[in-house]
Amino acid sequence: MNIRVGILGYGNLGRGVECAVRQNPDMELKAVFTRRDPSGVSILTETAKVCHVSEILDWKEVLDVLILCGGSATDLPEQTPKYARYFNVVDSFDTHARIPEHFARVDAAAKEGQKTAVISVGWDPGMFSLNRMYANAILPEGKDYTFWGRGVSQGHSDAVRRIPGVKDAKQYTIPVEEALKAVRAGENPELATRQKHTRECFVILEEGADAAKVEETIKTMPNYFADYDTTVHFISEEEMRRDHSRIPHGGFVLRSGVTGWEKENRHLIEYSLKLDSNPEFTSSVIAAYARAACRLSREGNTGCKTVFDIAPAYLSARSGEELRASLL
Amino acid sequence: MNIRVGILGYGNLGRGVECAVRQNPDMELKAVFTRRDPSGVSILTETAKVCHVSEILDWKEVLDVLILCGGSATDLPEQTPKYARYFNVVDSFDTHARIPEHFARVDAAAKEGQKTAVISVGWDPGMFSLNRMYANAILPEGKDYTFWGRGVSQGHSDAVRRIPGVKDAKQYTIPVEEALKAVRAGENPELATRQKHTRECFVILEEGADAAKVEETIKTMPNYFADYDTTVHFISEEEMRRDHSRIPHGGFVLRSGVTGWEKENRHLIEYSLKLDSNPEFTSSVIAAYARAACRLSREGNTGCKTVFDIAPAYLSARSGEELRASLL
Repeated sequence: MNIRVGILGYGNLGRGVECAVRQNPDMELKAVFTRRDPSGVSILTETAKVCHVSEILDWKEVLDVLILCGGSATDLPEQTPKYARYFNVVDSFDTHARIPEHFARVDAAAKEGQKTAVISVGWDPGMFSLNRMYANAILPEGKDYTFWGRGVSQGHSDAVRRIPGVKDAKQYTIPVEEALKAVRAGENPELATRQKHTRECFVILEEGADAAKVEETIKTMPNYFADYDTTVHFISEEEMRRDHSRIPHGGFVLRSGVTGWEKENRHLIEYSLKLDSNPEFTSSVIAAYARAACRLSREGNTGCKTVFDIAPAYLSARSGEELRASLL
Repeated sequence: MNIRVGILGYGNLGRGVECAVRQNPDMELKAVFTRRDPSGVSILTETAKVCHVSEILDWKEVLDVLILCGGSATDLPEQTPKYARYFNVVDSFDTHARIPEHFARVDAAAKEGQKTAVISVGWDPGMFSLNRMYANAILPEGKDYTFWGRGVSQGHSDAVRRIPGVKDAKQYTIPVEEALKAVRAGENPELATRQKHTRECFVILEEGADAAKVEETIKTMPNYFADYDTTVHFISEEEMRRDHSRIPHGGFVLRSGVTGWEKENRHLIEYSLKLDSNPEFTSSVIAAYARAACRLSREGNTGCKTVFDIAPAYLSARSGEELRASLL
């Protein structure tokens, strides 16, 4: 029987999950739940319903898994524990520092409801975490590096947009090529923040705004830009539409380690992603883990999980035999 | 309590496992078993014993896991099912086409003995398989590429050594840079064997051997070289010792896929390894899976497993809490 999927929240991520479900023949989107007026939300899947979130518990027996597509700041800390009591759930909670407490709350709720929850699914946290973990287990003596980009940072773009005189803005995070090269060469460099990434901003000014002042405000903004080398470009609305309407991202996870009785041999493990669409790739990872959540639930394996706790085979629609014969 | 490890077979891989065990503070090497006269085998670990393989069953209660370091051609097909009845075992069986039958035989033996076996551990099969599998689950619509090298192929080196007139030889497999570039650019090329890898041989001739004839024999050898562009260099024994005594290897696993309602967005997932020592890296992967085998066994999860069946957290000495706080 197909895996029956519900989506809560229909922004970029919700739409991405809708597309990902369509690419997986064993999955079927049944409903999208929204806090907006459902009549004003039009989705792509003709066979699925749009419902107000207040009706969601009526779907308890219909859905095999509910995918939570809200934000990590305020939506998921509330939604994931709330719905893990009633549904198998998957979220993409990405505030790294707060994962332990989120895990604890979701775990308690999922166990109470005898459901399976998978949190912090995507690429970082997610695939990047997995690669850090595998590489650390394999090479216990070594050094980790994570680089992000070239890609759009939503948080940094928002920070620029809040500056008076800025009409719209997009910020790209860019890894420093020399730093990557040094890591790949096995030099195990110690890298300051400024040496790992640069930042590039594309800004549309309000009429009459002071460009020099906006640029200065960006470059000196604490936490967001002050510790980086930042470039600011002022562009027109047309240029923004033409050149910066996509949401690309990606990055690199590297571990450089040694083996041998005298630690005489060096090894480099590198994982990289180059993504045209950050939310659609995140959604694709989520869809695979939604499959895993359903299977674990059927086996009675309840509570909260992360990507570390789930055997890879659970992500695939193929059987163990097929996987061993085709991909091992 | 520490994980007590036994090693069967003390060649490059056995020595590599010995080194890897030393890098994992929760593991302890108790004994190395050999088919040779134990008095002629000297190992590096002072606290471990060297025993003849005929005594191995006396160690049933002493060892938590036995690591099988024989070859895939004749050793492992016999040894892994034989010892999986008495020990938790890990092997690096790498004859891809015969994995399904090896799995079935080891699974039956391990289940009979209520032990846990993990087969085909290393980097290919092993880490490369994992990356193929994850990438396929995440991007169901896409294309896979695996490139090997630059590295020493034991099988191809042996094939050259068997040619009359060849005293010693080393063969390197080299990925074609243009092919890698085309894959990375998302071109999804169809690549013939010759377009993916080249081969480079370093050969010491016997005195009086005919260099031109040896070169011709190499380049036209069916299966091994005929389908590749091959370069042959004749070198001295001193050059062989100086420049070719290491066993480096590595390679690349890539998946290029699409997402979006109209498949309008492209994504590239790339995993690569650059290894100074092929056997030592393989051994490091094996050590991590030996830890997993012991844990699964303690949980009563018996039978044969591959890297697809084991949740990543089982490989690490750190607790779930530590992993979530530090690597997620």
